[in-house]
Amino acid sequence: MQNILIIGAGKSSTALINYLLDHATEEQWNITIAEKDLKLAESKIKDHPQAKAVPFDVFDEEILTNLVGEHELIISMLPASLHIHVARKCAELKKHFLTASYLTEEIKSLHGQFENAGKLMIMEMGLDPGIDHMSAMKVLDELREKKYELTGFETFTGGLVAEESVGDNPWKYKFTWNPRNVVLAGQGTCKFIQEGRYKYIPYQKLFRRTEAIYIPDHGYFEGYANRDSLSYLDVYNLRGIKTLYRGTLRRPGYCAAWDVFVQLGATDDTYEMENVSNMTHRQFINSFLSYNPKDSIELKLAHYLSLDLDNGIMFKLKWLGMFDDELVGLNQGTPAQILEHILKKKWTLEPHDKDMIVMWHKFNFVADGKPRQIESSMVTMGDDEVNTAMSKTVGLPLAIAAKLILQGKIKLSGVHVPIKKEIYEPVLDELTNTGLVFSEREVEPTFYS
Amino acid sequence: MQNILIIGAGKSSTALINYLLDHATEEQWNITIAEKDLKLAESKIKDHPQAKAVPFDVFDEEILTNLVGEHELIISMLPASLHIHVARKCAELKKHFLTASYLTEEIKSLHGQFENAGKLMIMEMGLDPGIDHMSAMKVLDELREKKYELTGFETFTGGLVAEESVGDNPWKYKFTWNPRNVVLAGQGTCKFIQEGRYKYIPYQKLFRRTEAIYIPDHGYFEGYANRDSLSYLDVYNLRGIKTLYRGTLRRPGYCAAWDVFVQLGATDDTYEMENVSNMTHRQFINSFLSYNPKDSIELKLAHYLSLDLDNGIMFKLKWLGMFDDELVGLNQGTPAQILEHILKKKWTLEPHDKDMIVMWHKFNFVADGKPRQIESSMVTMGDDEVNTAMSKTVGLPLAIAAKLILQGKIKLSGVHVPIKKEIYEPVLDELTNTGLVFSEREVEPTFYS
Repeated sequence: MQNILIIGAGKSSTALINYLLDHATEEQWNITIAEKDLKLAESKIKDHPQAKAVPFDVFDEEILTNLVGEHELIISMLPASLHIHVARKCAELKKHFLTASYLTEEIKSLHGQFENAGKLMIMEMGLDPGIDHMSAMKVLDELREKKYELTGFETFTGGLVAEESVGDNPWKYKFTWNPRNVVLAGQGTCKFIQEGRYKYIPYQKLFRRTEAIYIPDHGYFEGYANRDSLSYLDVYNLRGIKTLYRGTLRRPGYCAAWDVFVQLGATDDTYEMENVSNMTHRQFINSFLSYNPKDSIELKLAHYLSLDLDNGIMFKLKWLGMFDDELVGLNQGTPAQILEHILKKKWTLEPHDKDMIVMWHKFNFVADGKPRQIESSMVTMGDDEVNTAMSKTVGLPLAIAAKLILQGKIKLSGVHVPIKKEIYEPVLDELTNTGLVFSEREVEPTFYS
Repeated sequence: MQNILIIGAGKSSTALINYLLDHATEEQWNITIAEKDLKLAESKIKDHPQAKAVPFDVFDEEILTNLVGEHELIISMLPASLHIHVARKCAELKKHFLTASYLTEEIKSLHGQFENAGKLMIMEMGLDPGIDHMSAMKVLDELREKKYELTGFETFTGGLVAEESVGDNPWKYKFTWNPRNVVLAGQGTCKFIQEGRYKYIPYQKLFRRTEAIYIPDHGYFEGYANRDSLSYLDVYNLRGIKTLYRGTLRRPGYCAAWDVFVQLGATDDTYEMENVSNMTHRQFINSFLSYNPKDSIELKLAHYLSLDLDNGIMFKLKWLGMFDDELVGLNQGTPAQILEHILKKKWTLEPHDKDMIVMWHKFNFVADGKPRQIESSMVTMGDDEVNTAMSKTVGLPLAIAAKLILQGKIKLSGVHVPIKKEIYEPVLDELTNTGLVFSEREVEPTFYS
């Protein structure tokens, strides 16, 4: 018997836990779920004979030492900043360790310890980062093996609501992941490289610099740039490539409407607003507009942002209730916190709602002197509001990696992100069996016209 | 004989030093100028028999102790962050201390020490902050003494180039003060209160939310909001006032053109750009625009910002050489540093250029049930590129305060900003003799239409 420890049984752990439980008998695993909320953990176990729930506190050294000591492989679904505590304990006690969070310098510094222990730690083993790395590196490595010259790589991912759950929502969007991250998305400056030129997009223009992306059977999406694409020059070993661009997908029309909040300053998280407890949605919007008692807030907003009053954006704002006299319902908050609170009233998944993950890569290369282009995409739907596409795409790579490590099929040691063939090849193969499939197609290369 | 120590003999100290030298014989002062650059200090003394220059290093405890110990009153023209070292020494050795910089919590904490020593420390004793406080408080206190109800206070200041020195410069602006502060001006969120409503303007809209301000004999100016007007509710004892707005003055057309740099992200100071040593002005602009080899940078910019190609803003950018193939001339830099460097090529005062300071206040109040409005303004020209209006308006309040303290005409002790009648009344009187005069006029109250 081998022992697996899962820390955290929240929303994003559902698919991870289910996969491991489903394979526990066959693989001879004992599974422990460590979670502050014991009832939540027990509800996920559903009386599985090889699983148990235990209470957890990452800052209780004794609990942490005992738990890590009793298991061969640990998977942490804790908030990103807390992984380091578990990682240090795994290094000390020589255990495998997996998370879906970004690799930090602090965690990277444990590489030698894990290597010496002959144990493997994989960070960024979820969706984005995770599946994006693996699916991109698979194609990039294939092209490199054929000695083709890589000229461009673009990659976009979006967590969306499924088309069938859009209903009358003109944004065609709901929160399917951390709402706060959605509200703050894009703050700072985006950097990327296009045809050999370094390009920079400031936050105030980010949502007006979208790309149209077509995905067969699903139609058009729009993509806006993610923060620092340049850092991926080294991660993917792409120094010298002419174009490198990472971004986020939304349905067409989202970005232009979201830009209203950006332009107003409604996503600012740097100061507390005044008089929040008495503030209505309408007053929230008005606090970013000039004072004028004779003009309506709708007209002031439309004029300020050069929108016609019948522009679709105005209807998107009305649908959210942004002009309503309803109280916000907070006692204090930054603009970003207040906006998030208002948006949650309309953008929270209902029990019958399904979410959807879309990932799309574009590879440009020169083969035998001819420019060519491959596009690769994956679209996954959630089953319901518990078994979400987000939970599957974050949890299954972790679960599969855990299985492969315990089966001895991934033999690496040290601290890694899944860009090595030894990791991505078997994980992608197994992901295909769970329905997370990339379809690749070669298309006519697109040029700048 | 009384001894005065001036620390720092840079550009902004000229008028301060000249005033003190001019009064040294009559007032029986010995004046010491402490300055790293001894030659510079000596050039400002011009062999005055009662003045000498000495070397200085704020971090040399012995020099600082000896110098402060030998003088009755110290004026610091050091960078703002260094005042605290001198202030602590003045508190310890019981000396008067004056600066033109903003009061900080750290310096405020010395209040008790100065009070116990019977010595006076005045911060914010320059132009803005300084003359703005004094000239505003004079009118505010007069209105309060008459028991009028204060309903609104707006105040704007600008450091500009004199009309006669504008030449063919379509911006009608040059750097007359720290260029870096001009490039970074307005970053963050502006907060103010208008007719009882809290209002917020984010950086990306700041230069499109200007006010038109008319000053007799000088015509129209435009004003944009300064950071946190709300903090002045307490400083000026204005809690309950319906409108409070502080801003910066520019000549009409400046803000709409400056907004181009804001929208592009060219004022961002948070990251280093790539390939700066080979970068031309034109490439600098292009790095904020989409890649497209077939469109000109001019057209891409105009389209991006919805400008007609013959919009005056395009001519302002051309005049600056922003589209030129000239090398920037730096080896590294943030966008803000690179922009500053390019702007300095055209916006540096020439030897014959005169600068100009404009300050304008608007006071609204209700007297005997009737709304009334007073406007007060001061316009001052520099004599040349050394005796600038900026140097006069920053230095003369300090010099005059020094004289009044040593004459025993200001008897306060502790740490203060010049909002008390005991300070502002005699200083404003004496400023009038130097030509820094406010003209007040009552006008028909303006209402929101």
